[in-house]
Amino acid sequence: MFVAKIHVLLKPTVNDPQGLTIARALDRLGFDAVDAVRAGKYFEVQIQGSDELTAEREVKAMCEKLLSNPVIETFTYELELV
Amino acid sequence: MFVAKIHVLLKPTVNDPQGLTIARALDRLGFDAVDAVRAGKYFEVQIQGSDELTAEREVKAMCEKLLSNPVIETFTYELELV
Repeated sequence: MFVAKIHVLLKPTVNDPQGLTIARALDRLGFDAVDAVRAGKYFEVQIQGSDELTAEREVKAMCEKLLSNPVIETFTYELELV
Repeated sequence: MFVAKIHVLLKPTVNDPQGLTIARALDRLGFDAVDAVRAGKYFEVQIQGSDELTAEREVKAMCEKLLSNPVIETFTYELELV
């Protein structure tokens, strides 16, 4: 079995209102050293099977079809055999 | 300057409706090999300064005060010097 650790982040050129809001809130809480915040999503997907190539193809497809919006987001993933 | 890469996940015993919904959606899309999905949050925080201990203390404090809900979530972080 594999665990896919998937990160979905807004593309660098896309405005990130959630990140901006968090940065402002941290500033108000006294965290003066904070420069910028980007907010994203993180998924851990358990995948049956023992073939790494198949699992990787599945993960890529599910990122493209459901987990990310390719117009404004990018995704990265790591596969771990468990 | 540091970049803190912060993961916030629901504790394993806490029900994860977002993860369950994604798992069901993936199943409907034909990804039969998917066993389970956990959904979490991911933040990249840029922190000024060059002292790693100070930066680490700040990151821990901001996770406890704002970025996670310690009742139902856990957080992990890595610091990268950039």
